[in-house]
Amino acid sequence: MTVLERFYQGDKRALSKIISYIENRQDGYQDILGQLYSKAGKAVRIAITGPPGAGKSTIVNRLIHQFLKKSLKVGVIAVDPSSPFTGGALLGDRVRMSDFHLETDVYFRSMATRGASGGLASATSNVSIVLDAFGFDIILMETVGVGQVELDIVDACDSVVVVMVPESGDAVQTMKAGLMEIADIFVVNKSDRPNSERIVTDLRQSLETKKIDKESDWKVPIISTVATDDKNIDKLTEKINQHIEYIRSAGILEKKRYNQLTKKIVAILKSRFEKEFLEKLISSSELEEQIKGIIEGETNPYDISNRLFEKFYKKP
Amino acid sequence: MTVLERFYQGDKRALSKIISYIENRQDGYQDILGQLYSKAGKAVRIAITGPPGAGKSTIVNRLIHQFLKKSLKVGVIAVDPSSPFTGGALLGDRVRMSDFHLETDVYFRSMATRGASGGLASATSNVSIVLDAFGFDIILMETVGVGQVELDIVDACDSVVVVMVPESGDAVQTMKAGLMEIADIFVVNKSDRPNSERIVTDLRQSLETKKIDKESDWKVPIISTVATDDKNIDKLTEKINQHIEYIRSAGILEKKRYNQLTKKIVAILKSRFEKEFLEKLISSSELEEQIKGIIEGETNPYDISNRLFEKFYKKP
Repeated sequence: MTVLERFYQGDKRALSKIISYIENRQDGYQDILGQLYSKAGKAVRIAITGPPGAGKSTIVNRLIHQFLKKSLKVGVIAVDPSSPFTGGALLGDRVRMSDFHLETDVYFRSMATRGASGGLASATSNVSIVLDAFGFDIILMETVGVGQVELDIVDACDSVVVVMVPESGDAVQTMKAGLMEIADIFVVNKSDRPNSERIVTDLRQSLETKKIDKESDWKVPIISTVATDDKNIDKLTEKINQHIEYIRSAGILEKKRYNQLTKKIVAILKSRFEKEFLEKLISSSELEEQIKGIIEGETNPYDISNRLFEKFYKKP
Repeated sequence: MTVLERFYQGDKRALSKIISYIENRQDGYQDILGQLYSKAGKAVRIAITGPPGAGKSTIVNRLIHQFLKKSLKVGVIAVDPSSPFTGGALLGDRVRMSDFHLETDVYFRSMATRGASGGLASATSNVSIVLDAFGFDIILMETVGVGQVELDIVDACDSVVVVMVPESGDAVQTMKAGLMEIADIFVVNKSDRPNSERIVTDLRQSLETKKIDKESDWKVPIISTVATDDKNIDKLTEKINQHIEYIRSAGILEKKRYNQLTKKIVAILKSRFEKEFLEKLISSSELEEQIKGIIEGETNPYDISNRLFEKFYKKP
């Protein structure tokens, strides 16, 4: 039996193999990914993002329990370098997480942030297609919401949960507009600590001033949790479900899927243009000749580019 | 007489008009720029970069005097938002700078950092071509060396002067490798202040450990200046001339020109591909149909991209 056949039969070792294959962009990975697309499309992608130390991994941990209780299959992709999956957290968390490895309806995968970070967002989106095709209902993406790469990952999710802690109080004032805009649900975790109410008030005020720009009718809720005590995680799960329900019925999920696929196609085309045309051009003796012509004042980069463009471009 | 004719006759008002035309990317700006390329290629581009408050504008000011004394024509492009040209500095500087406006052999231009910052590096490089074609011997580019855009601008220069002050001492330790790599000459300005010797020592040590990686034989000098008193600006000018002489005789300048032109051609081709193919594609009903096909599980982004790519791509 081929790896792909075993994958379709629900073999998790085959799943891991295929994920590695696609993550490492081994020869022909696009063919496999292309096949998997026809099986994908059912999973819901939920981003859990926020500053380091906000308790994202514990929240992810607790959410898994909630989804499993509803007989939903959960795949987790962790891009957060401080996540227990990638090795930055307390041993206590690790042990607790390891319980799940025995279950059949949950799967963890950490994405390396090392290497070409330019491709991380696209690698993460590819892995989510694999999980989707495997049959997971929910895909949780855990990231530290800071850089452009992480914003790209989060942007490709259907529902975005931004996790804060009472200590993030000042951060709310200066919070990047981007992060404020992408949140569908705010969580104030560790809400048994001082200043918890203040950050909720601050967030509410910020949300009210931003609200006018939003196209959607969704009112971004703020949920105070204590993830280590499982406090209000049921509420959070309910809000996530409500949000998914809302975007589904309002046609927003459909639009998101459309935009995600457009971006994917554009990314593939750009990459093919760069690899199959520009890279070859740069090392060609033809370009060398042409550039000599510029240096000698006989031609210029615009004329050369026009000629090169006409040469490979068939008007569709 | 057309603006371009007046430009070729050395009319500075025509120069300003053409720069604005090209900076704003008005219709047909590529045609004009293409023509100017054949007249360009003689000017030397010198970047003056460093943290805000290091005294870059004063150094630029003093360097202009030095170059004018040698009967060289000097064009200045300021991208630094705290520069006197763009309005962040002391009135005293402004008055001093204004003396030059009477001279015929010097020209100032500030580039707005607002707007599409993505295009700033390319806009700056375009303006330098205009100045080059107008007949300036030296083009001084003043930037704050922090972000990627500024690094791109500096990277397109022939000689890079990095300006520090004694207070930057700690910064040297944590200085971005990028900035350390691109410096052809270091200046410790305001060297009459405390800790001036320490930063020179620190810089020298850092340079020695980096030296092994460098392809070129050029030994990066460190010059202590007090620009407000004109102290050692003659030395700096001499070192700049020596560096230009060195890269010219070692064939490095030729390689730089070649790489700059390759990057320019690649940028033009990418931009045409995006505008003439991708943008049209995104708004086409064809793509809409295809994406519906993916959502219905009939096809996938790879098959669609392959088909689209074959459609417009003629194998050269």
